[in-house]
Amino acid sequence: MSYSEMTTAELNGLREQLLAAYEEKKGLGLNLSMARGKPSKEQLDLSMPMFSIVNENTPMVGEDGMDFRNYGVLSGIKEAKRLFAQILEVEPENIVIYGNASLNLMYDTVARAFVRGVLGSTPWCKLDKVKFLCPVPGYDRHFTICEFFGIEMINVPMDENGPDMDMVEKLVSEDPAVKGIWCVPMYSNPTGITYSDEVVKRFANLKPAAEDFRIYWDNAYCIHHLYADKQAKLLNIVDECRKAGNEDMVYEFCSTSKVTFAGAGISALAASEKNIKSIVDMMNAQIISFDKTNQLRHALFFPDMYALKAHMMKHADIMRPKFEGVLEMLDKELGDAGVASWTRPLGGYFISFDAMEGCAKKIVSMCKDAGIVMTGAGAAYPYGKDPKDSNIRIAPSFPSKDELMQACEIFVICVKIVSIEKILETR
Amino acid sequence: MSYSEMTTAELNGLREQLLAAYEEKKGLGLNLSMARGKPSKEQLDLSMPMFSIVNENTPMVGEDGMDFRNYGVLSGIKEAKRLFAQILEVEPENIVIYGNASLNLMYDTVARAFVRGVLGSTPWCKLDKVKFLCPVPGYDRHFTICEFFGIEMINVPMDENGPDMDMVEKLVSEDPAVKGIWCVPMYSNPTGITYSDEVVKRFANLKPAAEDFRIYWDNAYCIHHLYADKQAKLLNIVDECRKAGNEDMVYEFCSTSKVTFAGAGISALAASEKNIKSIVDMMNAQIISFDKTNQLRHALFFPDMYALKAHMMKHADIMRPKFEGVLEMLDKELGDAGVASWTRPLGGYFISFDAMEGCAKKIVSMCKDAGIVMTGAGAAYPYGKDPKDSNIRIAPSFPSKDELMQACEIFVICVKIVSIEKILETR
Repeated sequence: MSYSEMTTAELNGLREQLLAAYEEKKGLGLNLSMARGKPSKEQLDLSMPMFSIVNENTPMVGEDGMDFRNYGVLSGIKEAKRLFAQILEVEPENIVIYGNASLNLMYDTVARAFVRGVLGSTPWCKLDKVKFLCPVPGYDRHFTICEFFGIEMINVPMDENGPDMDMVEKLVSEDPAVKGIWCVPMYSNPTGITYSDEVVKRFANLKPAAEDFRIYWDNAYCIHHLYADKQAKLLNIVDECRKAGNEDMVYEFCSTSKVTFAGAGISALAASEKNIKSIVDMMNAQIISFDKTNQLRHALFFPDMYALKAHMMKHADIMRPKFEGVLEMLDKELGDAGVASWTRPLGGYFISFDAMEGCAKKIVSMCKDAGIVMTGAGAAYPYGKDPKDSNIRIAPSFPSKDELMQACEIFVICVKIVSIEKILETR
Repeated sequence: MSYSEMTTAELNGLREQLLAAYEEKKGLGLNLSMARGKPSKEQLDLSMPMFSIVNENTPMVGEDGMDFRNYGVLSGIKEAKRLFAQILEVEPENIVIYGNASLNLMYDTVARAFVRGVLGSTPWCKLDKVKFLCPVPGYDRHFTICEFFGIEMINVPMDENGPDMDMVEKLVSEDPAVKGIWCVPMYSNPTGITYSDEVVKRFANLKPAAEDFRIYWDNAYCIHHLYADKQAKLLNIVDECRKAGNEDMVYEFCSTSKVTFAGAGISALAASEKNIKSIVDMMNAQIISFDKTNQLRHALFFPDMYALKAHMMKHADIMRPKFEGVLEMLDKELGDAGVASWTRPLGGYFISFDAMEGCAKKIVSMCKDAGIVMTGAGAAYPYGKDPKDSNIRIAPSFPSKDELMQACEIFVICVKIVSIEKILETR
């Protein structure tokens, strides 16, 4: 029965029971986290052979004759470019291999625009105002980059097809201060949705007022399916932009952080030749070359896309029961209560949970008091401000299935208590 | 006999002989480089066991319980901090471990000051003018960083004790636009000199007009001795600054690029607690963590300073004959000619060569035509402009000894020809 249909007495009674259950759980002294999209130990173990694939007997000379142990090859080794070219379905010439983190690559890409401008445009540090569009809920670390550079963020609502494109088109075409938009187009962080073909095409056909406007296309989860048979398909933004005569308008980011090792993977940028040339020229002031031995490690571990896809299915086999476990519990415990909604992703790392308005902070805080760490309420919004205080990001990957179920049980209790109190308040 | 004491006829005769020798060498179609400070294959081979030291069976959990394969530990693993604390003789708390390149660390340190300022000061991007002092000759990539950020560079002459400290003290104390000075204080790039105790103390006691003035102390060659028994000693700048009440005034940089692998090493920053805290806070916008597995690789390969020092002596055994070979040839061929001078370093990667004024570009160009690549003349000066056009950086490390001697022979011929022509011009 929906909570709102229950009598005040019934709700009070239920609340008493739930509070008792909560106190009991609290007494267990748990310390579990559903806060960050971290791979579990079991997932990390999948890539352990990669540490032996480059060893003291490995020939360290690439197909172009470069010694991978020495300086040089600023834009990355051919072998790794080919791997990412296959992942992103672009040409190897359109790829730059970066360091161990696509976050650092995104930060540096914004930094270069801030310091030196984009293909000859005015550096952002010389402008009074720079704005980014931020589809919400979104990835908190994108927003942190904007805050660091003093970039004003504008929320754009999302639905199951992607951002509100009417709003995006209007803002991008009318306001020359709008220089970028952050997108996680596939298995989005945190909603798990994948942008529809129409949305991708509308992105590719944007007519920006600013010549230095770029789509920051963080394709973090492009190969992170949960199922072999149910997979989202994302249209290729690089192709679509080229077709639309907008080939310089997009930067696509990707990494192996959640393929091999988080923090010890490699990352890549895909962009037009003009963008790539300009960025590599600027990179020359910053570094001589990234770690080519780790690039080699990855290229040897994934000789082709079949190897990579087989590997990703092993991840899926570990992740799937966790996602399904959370969803089952949410369905069972909250399916009829009418106090929340949540997403059912086919991939990625998150389930996005929407509580009743004004409840998210309280829920997260109650969870914390019982030893369950959730992502901070509001984190998925610019400046940490969820205007409805309703969104909570659930990250099921890191705990074991048992721990996850324990954590989830407490989360559900907290949701129920806070929702009932909210309903009672308004009576 | 000194060339200037020779008659014009003698010089012309000698020039003819040298030109014939030059043409002969040119006919060999050589392709050798003394341009960059790259370790040789033999040196890189020394660290190959490091690739096996982390393998699929290595426990990947640190002493503080962190899984090195997952996100986290932004400022670096304890095990690696301890290693650099020993190298730089500071406390581990004063260390941040960075990525694979100290150049990137230096670039980012300048970038953070540019975007956000230093400990609350005005960001440099908001200032009309930012200046750096550049002891010359110096490291070209330091100067490239300044150019990238539009920082004006001021040449400061060096002698065998370090930069001209009268000039440094005057400029730093009088001009609040002076925000930094680039130093390679030990086995300096390219002169090979080590700053004297007095110079280091005067650095530590600077009284900057700008609160955000910092000494950018690139201690790249601090353990890169050529001899076991003849080693320069550099006073500890961090200690000296603390004693002088200036503990926030210095950033010290270091890496293992020329210890293990160039481009696949790890790097470190040493600074005061206040500086470290501020920098790590800002790093949070940029990256979740650097590659901890490579940090572990280094910490396991160098369990203590004895292991590290023994390893560095193996490098020295490879480098020493090369340095000595070059110096012997310069002594023998140019020792009496009175047309050039050169340094005799006890460590580092370079010999600094000063030809007669107005000759460096011509020498480098002649070398190039004969297949010998030298660092571009002027590269050791801001904006690539050697006011005397006399300095040439010799990097003996990369070629084999035989190749190096071949290259050196041609270099010496070019020096002689260009010098004779210069002398004849003025007669």
